[in-house]
Amino acid sequence: MEPNNLNKEQDKNSWVLKACTLLSKIRDQSPLIQCITNFVSMDLMANTLLSAGASPAMIHSIEEIQDFTPNIHALCINVGTLSPAWLPAMREAAQVATKAGKPWVLDPVAAGASGFRLNACLELVGLKPSVIRGNGSEIIALSKASIGASKGVDSSHESMGAMEAAKSLAQSSGAIVAVSGAVDIITDGHRIVGAYNGVPMMQKITATGCAVTALIAGFVAVDPLHALEATASALSIFGIAGEIGMDMANGPASLRMHLIDSLYNLDQAAVSSRLKITGL
Amino acid sequence: MEPNNLNKEQDKNSWVLKACTLLSKIRDQSPLIQCITNFVSMDLMANTLLSAGASPAMIHSIEEIQDFTPNIHALCINVGTLSPAWLPAMREAAQVATKAGKPWVLDPVAAGASGFRLNACLELVGLKPSVIRGNGSEIIALSKASIGASKGVDSSHESMGAMEAAKSLAQSSGAIVAVSGAVDIITDGHRIVGAYNGVPMMQKITATGCAVTALIAGFVAVDPLHALEATASALSIFGIAGEIGMDMANGPASLRMHLIDSLYNLDQAAVSSRLKITGL
Amino acid sequence: MEPNNLNKEQDKNSWVLKACTLLSKIRDQSPLIQCITNFVSMDLMANTLLSAGASPAMIHSIEEIQDFTPNIHALCINVGTLSPAWLPAMREAAQVATKAGKPWVLDPVAAGASGFRLNACLELVGLKPSVIRGNGSEIIALSKASIGASKGVDSSHESMGAMEAAKSLAQSSGAIVAVSGAVDIITDGHRIVGAYNGVPMMQKITATGCAVTALIAGFVAVDPLHALEATASALSIFGIAGEIGMDMANGPASLRMHLIDSLYNLDQAAVSSRLKITGL
Repeated sequence: MEPNNLNKEQDKNSWVLKACTLLSKIRDQSPLIQCITNFVSMDLMANTLLSAGASPAMIHSIEEIQDFTPNIHALCINVGTLSPAWLPAMREAAQVATKAGKPWVLDPVAAGASGFRLNACLELVGLKPSVIRGNGSEIIALSKASIGASKGVDSSHESMGAMEAAKSLAQSSGAIVAVSGAVDIITDGHRIVGAYNGVPMMQKITATGCAVTALIAGFVAVDPLHALEATASALSIFGIAGEIGMDMANGPASLRMHLIDSLYNLDQAAVSSRLKITGL
Repeated sequence: MEPNNLNKEQDKNSWVLKACTLLSKIRDQSPLIQCITNFVSMDLMANTLLSAGASPAMIHSIEEIQDFTPNIHALCINVGTLSPAWLPAMREAAQVATKAGKPWVLDPVAAGASGFRLNACLELVGLKPSVIRGNGSEIIALSKASIGASKGVDSSHESMGAMEAAKSLAQSSGAIVAVSGAVDIITDGHRIVGAYNGVPMMQKITATGCAVTALIAGFVAVDPLHALEATASALSIFGIAGEIGMDMANGPASLRMHLIDSLYNLDQAAVSSRLKITGL
Repeated sequence: MEPNNLNKEQDKNSWVLKACTLLSKIRDQSPLIQCITNFVSMDLMANTLLSAGASPAMIHSIEEIQDFTPNIHALCINVGTLSPAWLPAMREAAQVATKAGKPWVLDPVAAGASGFRLNACLELVGLKPSVIRGNGSEIIALSKASIGASKGVDSSHESMGAMEAAKSLAQSSGAIVAVSGAVDIITDGHRIVGAYNGVPMMQKITATGCAVTALIAGFVAVDPLHALEATASALSIFGIAGEIGMDMANGPASLRMHLIDSLYNLDQAAVSSRLKITGL
């Protein structure tokens, strides 16, 4: 094997080992993941975390944050069906998590859909999330702090077109930034990796983006010091579950079912043969 | 062929063409459908719209209406889990949509279950929806402006028994009124058509009524000037997806999955062989 | 047959007859079950009730209680995604139901997760629920009136370890208390029965606990004077549906689908061959 190919092979093996190790840790430790999330995604998000081995808790009331949040292993905040009443609890949960040294992950759904939403997302970005995951339009909206880049919750930008925005946002926020798309891009503002797993039909299932953000929280929970690796691993693992599910699916609804079943059953052989993460 | 049968055949062909054309338009244009809806239905409603090719956005906060609603292609308002806090946003979204010339569709879930709910629905009816879709009990409650006609969210009236109520409501409101049932009835207050597709087990899946209302919004979005035809087409298309799904289903949960898959895969041949819409 | 075995056989036959009779009654009478429940569970809870033959209504607004709640057949209150705004309606619905002689069932999700949540649950317990169903950690938290016994929404206690707590809670509250687990325990504070149906993977599906609590409400609705028997029957019926579903499942998501389908199709032969309820 050529030295360059050898490096690539080693690199691939190292990512497979990383992803499998983290998935095993989730199954062994069953980390408690608090999700303050939108109404649409709660079911799929909880089932995604359960299938991966984590323990989800959809607890969003500000009255519970001080008692509950210090006991979690990671927090996921998603602004999908945002209203002013929910924002104080998101803010407080982020602060309590940070103070307790627990990682937290932000999903800035439709960040550019309104001024209210953009300001809420920018404020949350300022509260030091460990990871921010969105689609191209959302990351561009956050990076430029401007509305109008997105059409609703679906992206009108390819992930590759948001690479500079992602780097810039990662540098200014200190968070790992992930952009979902045909290729998922993950960056800490300097290093950039691409995760290539997944199938297009996953975008025809509501809340798959939200669900993978929760899964990132699960992965970061068991390896908080390597958030970039944990994020890329979660994105690939979810994508692989989608690929395996797609082999059995007849449409978006059966894909959703098979994706969750596949995530539950995922083994090292499947990860090893399918995982594709590379430096960009 | 006898002249009368020839007319019927032409009529059928014209409905098939209409329904297929609208479905193609949704798939091509991916209209943005804002849904202010109940908590139970959000998942199925979003997945129904995605499977049909539309882009759903569950954005319900009054703070976002002025920025977001002018950019949508149609609005769906559903009062299923109504609370006073949500009503102002429903009102404002309906007004902004109307002012921007965007069609909007009302689902008066359990309209007769309480005075609060009935009054909210009547107020929304006064804001000029393009289409109102309910079951027999809901349309009767709205038409008579009286509570007690319905037992919870399930209808205690057949759609045919609500025909006069539907005509009367259509005339007084200016909306197209659709009554779901074994036969779906659609009227503008003068003309009445019946849509015969669907299977009884669809009523054993929660939120199928809500989902078809959202689908109507998708169809009206791509043909706002022919709301009666768009509404009848959406009801038949959803019913046909249910019929095809039923061939593979073992119960309500597998029917739900196959229905969504079938909607995603629906082609002209299936519509042509199954669609049944006639004048009444 | 030995006299002792004969008694056991008679006992088993009597439970089979009880469970089948109640399920038939639900299918015949379609009782109206009001659910004030968490956002995560609404879909599965409604579909569980529909598949069993009941008519669910997720109506939670305090403005509707006086009009609507007197017409229901049973009420289910679940505190999963509790916030202060929802508590007054829960309180009022419980009071109106009790005053109207309608049974109501409490699901104290994650009762020990915070002081706010524990106090809310204890207050609801004081409003005389007919049945309380939780996991081991939740029943212990309620019985000891102390937080910290539970890790999020998943139990860290086996049901058997909560037996004394369940008896004590039943005695102090006057409610039937059910503890879900590998064995479901049901007690009125004196008599204790165990229900053995179900499969472990049901815990990997979000909201199965919530769903079975709603099913208990359905069973108690058609036999309010025998709440212990109705509760044990509902737990076994749901467990049997899970067992049958498990024979066809490849993971948690397909199990969820097959469970609901199986509940819909459940017949006396399956109940007779699988049901296992015994005195403890």
